[in-house]
Amino acid sequence: MPRIVMKFGGTSVADLERIRHVASLVEAEAKAGNEVAVVVSAMSGETNRLVGLVDALDADLAPDGKRRDSAIEDEYDSIVASGEQVTSGLLAIALRRRGLRARSWLGWQIPLRTDMAHSKARIAEIESSAIGPSLKEGNVAVVAGFQGVNERGRISTLGRGGSDTSAVAIAVALKADRCDIYTDVDGIYTTDPRIEEDARRLNRIAFEEMLELASLGAKVLQTRSVELAMNNNLPIRVLTSMREVGEDNPGTLVCHEDETMEERVVSGVAYSRDEAQITLLRLADRPGMVAKVCKAMSDANVIVDMIVQGISRSDNAANLTFTVGKRDLDKALAALNASKETIGFEKIKSDSDVTKVSVVGIGMRSHTGVAQTMFEALAERNINVEVIATSEIKISVLIDAEYTELAVRALHSAFGLENA
Amino acid sequence: MPRIVMKFGGTSVADLERIRHVASLVEAEAKAGNEVAVVVSAMSGETNRLVGLVDALDADLAPDGKRRDSAIEDEYDSIVASGEQVTSGLLAIALRRRGLRARSWLGWQIPLRTDMAHSKARIAEIESSAIGPSLKEGNVAVVAGFQGVNERGRISTLGRGGSDTSAVAIAVALKADRCDIYTDVDGIYTTDPRIEEDARRLNRIAFEEMLELASLGAKVLQTRSVELAMNNNLPIRVLTSMREVGEDNPGTLVCHEDETMEERVVSGVAYSRDEAQITLLRLADRPGMVAKVCKAMSDANVIVDMIVQGISRSDNAANLTFTVGKRDLDKALAALNASKETIGFEKIKSDSDVTKVSVVGIGMRSHTGVAQTMFEALAERNINVEVIATSEIKISVLIDAEYTELAVRALHSAFGLENA
Repeated sequence: MPRIVMKFGGTSVADLERIRHVASLVEAEAKAGNEVAVVVSAMSGETNRLVGLVDALDADLAPDGKRRDSAIEDEYDSIVASGEQVTSGLLAIALRRRGLRARSWLGWQIPLRTDMAHSKARIAEIESSAIGPSLKEGNVAVVAGFQGVNERGRISTLGRGGSDTSAVAIAVALKADRCDIYTDVDGIYTTDPRIEEDARRLNRIAFEEMLELASLGAKVLQTRSVELAMNNNLPIRVLTSMREVGEDNPGTLVCHEDETMEERVVSGVAYSRDEAQITLLRLADRPGMVAKVCKAMSDANVIVDMIVQGISRSDNAANLTFTVGKRDLDKALAALNASKETIGFEKIKSDSDVTKVSVVGIGMRSHTGVAQTMFEALAERNINVEVIATSEIKISVLIDAEYTELAVRALHSAFGLENA
Repeated sequence: MPRIVMKFGGTSVADLERIRHVASLVEAEAKAGNEVAVVVSAMSGETNRLVGLVDALDADLAPDGKRRDSAIEDEYDSIVASGEQVTSGLLAIALRRRGLRARSWLGWQIPLRTDMAHSKARIAEIESSAIGPSLKEGNVAVVAGFQGVNERGRISTLGRGGSDTSAVAIAVALKADRCDIYTDVDGIYTTDPRIEEDARRLNRIAFEEMLELASLGAKVLQTRSVELAMNNNLPIRVLTSMREVGEDNPGTLVCHEDETMEERVVSGVAYSRDEAQITLLRLADRPGMVAKVCKAMSDANVIVDMIVQGISRSDNAANLTFTVGKRDLDKALAALNASKETIGFEKIKSDSDVTKVSVVGIGMRSHTGVAQTMFEALAERNINVEVIATSEIKISVLIDAEYTELAVRALHSAFGLENA
């Protein structure tokens, strides 16, 4: 019997009416002859309420947003995990009221074991010994997402949005045939439809492309959930929970590349406004200088993304430009100023009014000319490119934030995505 | 080092301000050199909110208030237990913010094992292997009350108000020296101060007396928690959570009888308005008739309390009068009418406008004349006694509800409780 995992986020289970609707979607899959495990988030707003209670007692956060006291992290996780505990119980009841056999599973009941990293624990192991047989006996398993149990027997949470990842991890452990992620959009689009009205829903997309899109700014799926699915060859389907049973709702299938996909050169255009650009001017010409900059950033817990070295035309000195997350900018600047002597530069310039725009496509592997098409399209609109970064299947450029929409539309059209 | 358990109900942890106050009370006990375990209820209103969510999905209750589907009971328990999960985490954080070492313990983490009776599970066993050493290491244990884990690994709850019982059970398992139950009154009174303004707080009361008072209508402590404490010789102190640290707050110590107590004949006057009276008129004079009535009630899940058999003066026929819980009255009448032939009676009379008033005192064992004093005091006020029930340490009478306050005041004064 095919086995699927269905995952519903907070807005899909926002109130009892939505929970009843989710029960109808689950029933349809069970009646269609699938073994079904469902992973649910907390009712929307509930996680914020619980975090608010903790913050009112303890707002003592380190600069990276983590709590300074790891014992308080333990309590935070235990408190916040109660949100999914409630939803999983309510959905199990709603399913039973429709005549299905269903039960809830909390992280510690599965058990879904995690490491000790608080509020962003990684999944170490899932024992499927209890939940698997329960599915085989015809029970729907309703799993509280977002939570596990660590080696000290405390509740751990997988971080905000971690329920995508726990859904995929459970699907992998259960050897499911597919993981369906229900959300408030009906699939993965060629670009953000709020910017480009001709954006199209993709029927299929390759894991690698989805991974690039997710890490380049597309917010539909968590990067970690895609990695996990790819490594285990588990197809993910992204679809909307807002349609009724029986309505057309194909969504987008994220899976290993196939022949259909290879005909496409570019699958999507992503953008991210979360970047900031830092330039170090007139660097001393010493070996290992880039390594020193990277070490300073890594010591300050700042991730460096794009990086480019150049020569200033005016005074023939070396400059180094790189990007960091916008919210890490102050921290990065402080660390660089503290290492000014060690690194050896004269001046820092920074700019947070920048956007990273990327084109992604698995077809770039076998097709040339993508870069040319991209830079021509941008040049035609007089959009200046500050930094460029490439991988086998994507090209990213950093541009002035003002040009974001213009660039996204120009690239969408240049690669013919409106009718691909 | 002395070890104590402190228990705080829903109003004591109603909001973050109250939780911070509870933390100050706990700190004072820890600083005074005690090992401290704290048992907490859900923030007041939270349990009702959670029950409301379940009821909105599933209001399919049997006449005894239990859910018809035991799998739904499983979910009910899991959902409702989240309330205490949140409070225990918040209090642990508030304690750490005061510089104490503290952690929360959920029912399944202790583990507090219960049997399978849903939403009124009884405690089968507590393993203190983890929590005891944690206390010894100087940690305050904050235990989520009201919850345990059953033999199938599901969360169970101990029923409304069950947190008193879980507090006492944990105190017993931890071999605590005392269990302090913090509530919104400052101790056990000789009677309800809302009725008799001269009611006095007792410094000490015997387990047996407290047990009678609790089952006779005094609502401060759960009967089961007193039984459990008595069987394990664990003193309970009842005191208020509304005073500041350092303020006088002696409360009432519930413990085995001692010499001080024996000087008192009567310790308190209790009343209960939750009774209903049923009279079966002109019973057939057959053997085993009372047994048949009791069987009919027991089959209908109705508990019979006081029972008296009499002869009607008018027609010389036998009557049987007994009391049941007011909310069971309709069920009891239906069951009796259905068994009219089997039992053999002519007519039923019922009255729910009755009150059970009781005097309780361990000194009654060694002093005669209590009944006389009681009935004289009632007769002087022209209060008619319908039914009488006695035990070694209590006398209860059923009277017309209109006379409740008058009877309570008359008895309080007749036994000199205002200055005992």
